[in-house]
Amino acid sequence: MNSASRSTSLSTVPSVVRRPSVSSRLSSVVSIAERGEVQDGGGIAGQDQIEEEIAKIKRYEDFTTIDWVQDAAREQLRRKARRKRQAGLYGSGQVDWRQKIREAYDAAQGWIVVTIIGAAIGLNAAFLSIITEWLADIKLGYCTTKFYLNEDFCCWGADNGTCNDWHRWTGLEPINYIIYIIFATLFALTAATLVKAYAPYAAGSGISEIKCIIAGFVMKGFLGFWTLVIKSLALPLAIASGLSVGKEGPSVHYAVCTGNVISRLFAKYRQNASKTREVLSACAAAGVAVAFGSPIGGVLFSLEEMSSTFPLKTLWRSYFCALVATAVLAAMNPFRTGQLVMFQVKYDRSWHFFEVLFYIIIGVFGGLYGAFVMKWNLRAQAFRKKYLTNYAVLEATLLAVATAIVCYPNAFLRIEMTESMKVLFRECEGAEDYHDLCDPDHRFGNVVSLILATIIRIFFVIISYGCKVPAGIFVPSMAIGASFGRTVGIIVQAIHEANPKSVFFSSCEPDVPCITPGTYAFLGAAAALSGIMHITVSVVVIMFELTGALTYILPTMIVVGVTKAVSELFGKGGIADRMIWFSGFPYLDHKEEHNFGVPVSHAMISDVVSIPSTGMTLKAVERLLTKDNYQGFPIVDDETSKILIGYIGRTELRYAVDRAKRERTLSPLAKCSFATTSSNTTDPTTPLIHPSTPASSSSNPLDYASSQATTISFAPYTDTTPLTVHPRLPLETVMELFRKIGPRVILIEHRGRLTGLVTVKDCLKYQFKAEAAEHHLSHPREGDLRRLEEEGQERVWGMIRAAAGWVSDTVGRVSRGRIRLSDSWEGQRRRGNVHPTAVGAAASGDGGVLDGTEEEGREDDEGLELENR
Amino acid sequence: MNSASRSTSLSTVPSVVRRPSVSSRLSSVVSIAERGEVQDGGGIAGQDQIEEEIAKIKRYEDFTTIDWVQDAAREQLRRKARRKRQAGLYGSGQVDWRQKIREAYDAAQGWIVVTIIGAAIGLNAAFLSIITEWLADIKLGYCTTKFYLNEDFCCWGADNGTCNDWHRWTGLEPINYIIYIIFATLFALTAATLVKAYAPYAAGSGISEIKCIIAGFVMKGFLGFWTLVIKSLALPLAIASGLSVGKEGPSVHYAVCTGNVISRLFAKYRQNASKTREVLSACAAAGVAVAFGSPIGGVLFSLEEMSSTFPLKTLWRSYFCALVATAVLAAMNPFRTGQLVMFQVKYDRSWHFFEVLFYIIIGVFGGLYGAFVMKWNLRAQAFRKKYLTNYAVLEATLLAVATAIVCYPNAFLRIEMTESMKVLFRECEGAEDYHDLCDPDHRFGNVVSLILATIIRIFFVIISYGCKVPAGIFVPSMAIGASFGRTVGIIVQAIHEANPKSVFFSSCEPDVPCITPGTYAFLGAAAALSGIMHITVSVVVIMFELTGALTYILPTMIVVGVTKAVSELFGKGGIADRMIWFSGFPYLDHKEEHNFGVPVSHAMISDVVSIPSTGMTLKAVERLLTKDNYQGFPIVDDETSKILIGYIGRTELRYAVDRAKRERTLSPLAKCSFATTSSNTTDPTTPLIHPSTPASSSSNPLDYASSQATTISFAPYTDTTPLTVHPRLPLETVMELFRKIGPRVILIEHRGRLTGLVTVKDCLKYQFKAEAAEHHLSHPREGDLRRLEEEGQERVWGMIRAAAGWVSDTVGRVSRGRIRLSDSWEGQRRRGNVHPTAVGAAASGDGGVLDGTEEEGREDDEGLELENR
Repeated sequence: MNSASRSTSLSTVPSVVRRPSVSSRLSSVVSIAERGEVQDGGGIAGQDQIEEEIAKIKRYEDFTTIDWVQDAAREQLRRKARRKRQAGLYGSGQVDWRQKIREAYDAAQGWIVVTIIGAAIGLNAAFLSIITEWLADIKLGYCTTKFYLNEDFCCWGADNGTCNDWHRWTGLEPINYIIYIIFATLFALTAATLVKAYAPYAAGSGISEIKCIIAGFVMKGFLGFWTLVIKSLALPLAIASGLSVGKEGPSVHYAVCTGNVISRLFAKYRQNASKTREVLSACAAAGVAVAFGSPIGGVLFSLEEMSSTFPLKTLWRSYFCALVATAVLAAMNPFRTGQLVMFQVKYDRSWHFFEVLFYIIIGVFGGLYGAFVMKWNLRAQAFRKKYLTNYAVLEATLLAVATAIVCYPNAFLRIEMTESMKVLFRECEGAEDYHDLCDPDHRFGNVVSLILATIIRIFFVIISYGCKVPAGIFVPSMAIGASFGRTVGIIVQAIHEANPKSVFFSSCEPDVPCITPGTYAFLGAAAALSGIMHITVSVVVIMFELTGALTYILPTMIVVGVTKAVSELFGKGGIADRMIWFSGFPYLDHKEEHNFGVPVSHAMISDVVSIPSTGMTLKAVERLLTKDNYQGFPIVDDETSKILIGYIGRTELRYAVDRAKRERTLSPLAKCSFATTSSNTTDPTTPLIHPSTPASSSSNPLDYASSQATTISFAPYTDTTPLTVHPRLPLETVMELFRKIGPRVILIEHRGRLTGLVTVKDCLKYQFKAEAAEHHLSHPREGDLRRLEEEGQERVWGMIRAAAGWVSDTVGRVSRGRIRLSDSWEGQRRRGNVHPTAVGAAASGDGGVLDGTEEEGREDDEGLELENR
Repeated sequence: MNSASRSTSLSTVPSVVRRPSVSSRLSSVVSIAERGEVQDGGGIAGQDQIEEEIAKIKRYEDFTTIDWVQDAAREQLRRKARRKRQAGLYGSGQVDWRQKIREAYDAAQGWIVVTIIGAAIGLNAAFLSIITEWLADIKLGYCTTKFYLNEDFCCWGADNGTCNDWHRWTGLEPINYIIYIIFATLFALTAATLVKAYAPYAAGSGISEIKCIIAGFVMKGFLGFWTLVIKSLALPLAIASGLSVGKEGPSVHYAVCTGNVISRLFAKYRQNASKTREVLSACAAAGVAVAFGSPIGGVLFSLEEMSSTFPLKTLWRSYFCALVATAVLAAMNPFRTGQLVMFQVKYDRSWHFFEVLFYIIIGVFGGLYGAFVMKWNLRAQAFRKKYLTNYAVLEATLLAVATAIVCYPNAFLRIEMTESMKVLFRECEGAEDYHDLCDPDHRFGNVVSLILATIIRIFFVIISYGCKVPAGIFVPSMAIGASFGRTVGIIVQAIHEANPKSVFFSSCEPDVPCITPGTYAFLGAAAALSGIMHITVSVVVIMFELTGALTYILPTMIVVGVTKAVSELFGKGGIADRMIWFSGFPYLDHKEEHNFGVPVSHAMISDVVSIPSTGMTLKAVERLLTKDNYQGFPIVDDETSKILIGYIGRTELRYAVDRAKRERTLSPLAKCSFATTSSNTTDPTTPLIHPSTPASSSSNPLDYASSQATTISFAPYTDTTPLTVHPRLPLETVMELFRKIGPRVILIEHRGRLTGLVTVKDCLKYQFKAEAAEHHLSHPREGDLRRLEEEGQERVWGMIRAAAGWVSDTVGRVSRGRIRLSDSWEGQRRRGNVHPTAVGAAASGDGGVLDGTEEEGREDDEGLELENR
């Protein structure tokens, strides 16, 4: 068993580096299983072992969904077996102390794992913070005393504004500008190259994929060790490059990777995919917690956005994991401010009721911002997928150059995004002033600057989010909201100062500042964050924990409420959900309420390939396996009566066949039996009232195989209790079952007869079809629009190619052929099958849903090259 | 239809006042239905109508659980019908503007309802706050200028400590003491009398019952109008009486009542019990939000404690409802402080890592406190149920007297609990000092005082929580935690001041106060609250919002985490869950993870009374109904084959029978048919692949009844798609189905044959049995302990009776027979059947589970008199 577990932990090394073929892995597990069986000697232990082996093999199957029901049943079997073993070993009276310790360890394992993971996440976060700050500052200058210090630490203890140790690179502003651009380019190039070469899954935010994974989807390597390493390395580079990307989404991703890698070291989680998902939820919470220094906000984010099922136990796990991670981060104290809060703000004044009017404006902005960015970002993604998949590194680098060139001149875009938020949130009284933000004489200039900053950043967020470096959208959105909010705040302040005696402002006290523009920036950040992610409660809590501005709880709630209402007008789901639809993951959204008004029979597959419980030859079974259309096969009494007996997964069947063949040579005409003798009874007058033990444990496959050479029993591999529903049950209820109970497949049974089969994919297909039909009714000219859009894309691509060609030619001419940019350009085109499209390239986006069944069929599809990476 | 809806809205007036008999209500609905049918003219509309009528009748059945699956299906039918009607009325092209408005109204109805409810809750909360403060202050003195002002408002604007308008009652302290006691007694007496006379359901906290109601249990009158009125009136009195009770539980109760009463005015919620539950969850959030001035805390409390299913939509509803309620409360500004936060604290100093040691002590205290109070409070409840049910008013009054007598001399118990917390949370620097709390010279005295206060209050909480006045346990627990925490804080401060140079305190800066005892009180309150309720995240958020002490987020999390760990050692579930078990409500706890390791067949009822689809006589059906053992009956093909066809609820069947008989005289030998002809096919070779429309809508019962006089079709009343599972499915999965999908019953089907039936009650019964068996194994002498306990109870009761007799005799002697206390004493015993045991008296507590099936059987049970009230 030991070597088996080692081989499993090796599997956390992603497939990019090495990936043994399925058959070799299978055979190693099988051979271990055989050895194990010799030691245990069959019986229940043997049965357990078969289940464990299958569980292990299952984990290798990519792009499938896990079966929560079977996982739970397996966990219960495991516990029961353990209890039995204990009772058998130690009798009733005497209990060994070692035994007690083992029991306590098993019970506490969950908490131990979460503690270790939390600590690891906290450490990683502290390390990342320090690196990021140093990289961001090195673009502007260096520390003369110790080169590895960033500006803050270099100037530690120095008087306000007079830091002698920190030097700009040169005295000349244009040269600084160029150095700034060069550093930014280098950082982006390194990050994109790292991602492309070692872990394509490390690109982007990762939140969409993690949502699917937590809901039960399997994406091999997405949470692997290399993804963790590369994401941790490339994230500081990407942020420091000045791209309009944030660190929160990637934080969640590396936190969840950490959780996955560490939990794999523990047997309990290695064998149970649904238990692991609980830990992953907790890790997502810790990821947000360390990114924002907001433990409760992280827990709520995990609850509101990440997790489809969120039992209370997971809530507590998340709470604990976030606590540990935050405590470790606080102990490391990377900001040297002694506090978790990123930018502590203190607002001395409370708000006035008349300000609600402006809060509503900010809320509306948040909603519009979210809808606008989502729409155009998705178009940019579609464009990227279609034309830019081969130029990922170049794209990220060019984006960084463009961002650096455009942003440097603007005072609010030049500094880091968190820094700029800190500046914008500040009250004018008692704090230092950046860029004369509080000076009434510079008001007009500042408003123009802020509006420009808002517009430019929106543009860059749209084209940057989704490029192939670690990139989040939280902080950029907040920065945009903050600059817009501050604009509103300054304008309101100006209006008030122009009309101090107006009735509207009557609740202001005279001769005292009444409007605090910083609070508007704060609320704007909340609105934009809520608008893009479509989350409410967690935004409010995150904003509190971030700023500590508790007086503004009601305004924040009002703003976020308005944003939510406006967002709803433009369709459901935040950017993470949109990305899921765009990528075609089989994810049943629990935010939507469907109302198809049809029974499940409309969505089910009715021509199911089923296996008769007896009489099928081994050859036929093997042929069925090579045809490989389904994840599993229902077992029926015989093909005509179609009385449902059970269900066998494809993995289990393949394993069983391989194993039976390995044991001894079998005739291809050997009969396969899928039912135990007891349940084979077809006499309807003796209903089975108390089948006390699962049939699968009553017989050992080896016994069967040896005694009857011409019959192979696959009964132990059969699930005798698949979930079944009536064909007339409403489709909505069936989707509810998938969402809340989580089986892989639901069989449709009518009066005992199998009439169909339905999976999440079938539900989603029906949903897409229904929505498309409805959409077509209300937008009959959709097709024209789509064609227009495609023409537009083609035109943009033509322009880019022309520009690229011109640049390439020019550089070639100037350098007299020594620098040939077009080399990489065309080289990549030749190596067309090495697509860096880790994310989002999997499905065509027009209703296709990813599922294990497409796996083989897509191998030669140009969009999906995940298997080869 | 209009009169039907009016009669339904009348039903919100609780049964205490008037309650028409079931038969009269039924007949009125039926007659309305008939009238309605004449207008509509049968068809699908008629079918809809039948469903609506049944839904309405269903609502009247007390102590049953609702069927979420059927409710959802009904809601979908309603929407579908509306869409069809619209399409039919307005064609495809032209859409009326009135139609559009109606559609928009229907879509927005949920939000409108929540807004109205939120505003009502906020108003009520403001009103209650003002009354409570005035009542609490009137015990000590009065305002000379305006008698209706409390001390704070009376002294508004006066200089610190010199308020001339507010007078103590007399100059003599002993007389003030007596006046204080008299007022307290009067308040408690009034509150208890109000509750007993008008709304017994208004007693206690209500959180346990609301949990069950939100999970789908029906308790008529518990959320009625009178309960709302009485709870709102009695709550300020109970709190002002000085009893160790809080206002948070009752706040939740009156908020949920408000929600129930208001949502009943809207058709959407009147007809859909599961939709209503969404609104009730939101109301629970608003209740906590206004009680604590903590909107996000309220939402989280609703999520963590109140709700079993919490879809995101409910989260947003809760958020919005809490926002509106809090905003209204803030606009009313009852505290005249202009802020929501009950006691704003500002801690200037941050915490030190060495303090974690003391935080752990506080956390451990919280866990122990919770376990101790729960254990003894449940014993007190058992005692109360057994002996004191007839003396509810006397009990509450005597408790108030005792509390007043004992608490007045202690400085920390004399003032109101929230006031005392405010004092204890305070920093010593810069704030006014109460009772020399910050004076190092009075340290010893204060510690003794605080320890006494802690112990006395624990005692009073144990005996007061559960007495028959509105009573919460949040604030008392927090007050206890605060006094304990402050004790620890003062001791730590003393140790530090004695050893300022110790290595342990090395992180303290010299010559500056290092320890802030107020923070310990703050953390103690969090620990005690978490210990008693077993909630974590919501406690942390509530404490933040309450105090605004954001720096202390990590310490709070650590303390609450420790408390949680300690609590878990003493069993799962907070006091609300314990009360649910104690009362025997059919509530499947979603906090527990069960591991029975048995198939569902072990828990199911296998000798189910089923109805053959054809051939049963009307007489037999009616006999079945009078026997009345089950909530419903499975429909089978015939009694021997037992092929499952559907399920019919008892209510539906009774209604159908009554209706058929009303229409024309029927022979008792008329045959009843429960299946439509299409699904009657027994030919196994033609599997039904696409039964496109539900069978129930294909035929109209009236047509059937008129054409074939000897056959009555009950097919439209039959549910053709009940949830079915395999007998070998693990029991845990079935419980999961109940918890997450929420059917009323799950049928057990094996190869198409009905083999059993399982309800929540059966699951709980099995669980109790399994737990009892396990418990018996580990505690073999349980029986002895129980006997000892009962003997102890008997002895206490004897002492109380002796004391009461002596008091009665003495008073009688002294007053020469003019005052006869024993009159009410014995009079109540004679009227033995008017038990005021609204809550908790329903089941015996040893494994009994309340369910509709016991309803009739319990009518003459002395414990349950709910029907008569």
